[in-house]
Amino acid sequence: MNGDINGIKKNGDSGSSDSSIIAGGINEVIAVTFDGSGRANAAPIGIINRSGRSRLVLFRGTHTLENILENGIFCANIVHDPVLYVKTAFEDIGSENFAEDFAEYIADGEGCVQRFFRLKSAESFVLFKAVKTGESAESCIFELNIVYEKVLSAHVHPFNRGFAAIIDATVHATRYAISRSEELKELIDYDISIARKCGGERENEAADMLLEYIK
Amino acid sequence: MNGDINGIKKNGDSGSSDSSIIAGGINEVIAVTFDGSGRANAAPIGIINRSGRSRLVLFRGTHTLENILENGIFCANIVHDPVLYVKTAFEDIGSENFAEDFAEYIADGEGCVQRFFRLKSAESFVLFKAVKTGESAESCIFELNIVYEKVLSAHVHPFNRGFAAIIDATVHATRYAISRSEELKELIDYDISIARKCGGERENEAADMLLEYIK
Repeated sequence: MNGDINGIKKNGDSGSSDSSIIAGGINEVIAVTFDGSGRANAAPIGIINRSGRSRLVLFRGTHTLENILENGIFCANIVHDPVLYVKTAFEDIGSENFAEDFAEYIADGEGCVQRFFRLKSAESFVLFKAVKTGESAESCIFELNIVYEKVLSAHVHPFNRGFAAIIDATVHATRYAISRSEELKELIDYDISIARKCGGERENEAADMLLEYIK
Repeated sequence: MNGDINGIKKNGDSGSSDSSIIAGGINEVIAVTFDGSGRANAAPIGIINRSGRSRLVLFRGTHTLENILENGIFCANIVHDPVLYVKTAFEDIGSENFAEDFAEYIADGEGCVQRFFRLKSAESFVLFKAVKTGESAESCIFELNIVYEKVLSAHVHPFNRGFAAIIDATVHATRYAISRSEELKELIDYDISIARKCGGERENEAADMLLEYIK
């Protein structure tokens, strides 16, 4: 992908513009973080990539934020399974979903090895170093730098409006679960109708699951 | 992808369930068709894939339908450029966007060569044989069988809600251009706001272009 077959980045402190995976705009990925005892956690996040800089805003009270503040790194997983987006948005998934992995890279002329966790089903992933650059009562902002990235299996995914509708519904549903806003419910209902009409089996399953979470 | 490095399908009459590219549900791709004089045409279509069968519904009065009725084949292009979806939905793109290609495959034990056209920027494509199985005053229905498929460059695309919103807006906009329905306009406005918020440069460009087409 980036002319680096082993997936080893040449410079662990290089900017995120170096990524052959992260694109312009907001990348909706599933972040895997872990705590001191090696317990991994997965949750959807949006990596904001503008003008070659990657940033992340995380709300307080989540395992994702706690773990990133503790370790300063996280793994952005590219997956194409709508069920996994819905599930990780609403609950903690079991340890059987995670794989322990090791990143070998060179930083400041030195060879480094970083232990981390990723999703077993990741098609590709990017390991980020996250530096806190701002905070408020509700959230923290991080500047991201790529440490390592790897393409595990480069499958082709034709665009499916049903899959897209599940991601859209998940974003709205996490907010709706708190606010119970009628406006959000209408957006979710529209998304679910598109998921049923245009999606495959996994989109149908994800739609059922999402409606159960916000009942 | 399907253990067939040269992209040559073993059986030109095999069902679409054989595809390693077309997924379950509705696949939003850009169809390239051509007429007797070799003039190629591109337009977004939705390939409906359920229970291992692929089908296509095309409305009358389009080049896509005319060309498929004439040739019985078309090329489904997997691209990830939002501008191309918007452009091909509303206008004829120039010949510089097309590449002439040849499919070599085996059907009924015989080696066959099929000339066709595809998008130059296709990341992968599937060549389909289309057999008309039904029609009405407004549309024709086709049953699809894969002749040949090929992965040209398997790029990783993290999910972007802005890209998805452009496809959604394009579907609504082609209908809105005719009906001027207020309900469709509201859906388009929502999509455009997501495209601006979550998309990259190409999504912004596609949004500008789409709003111009439906002015």
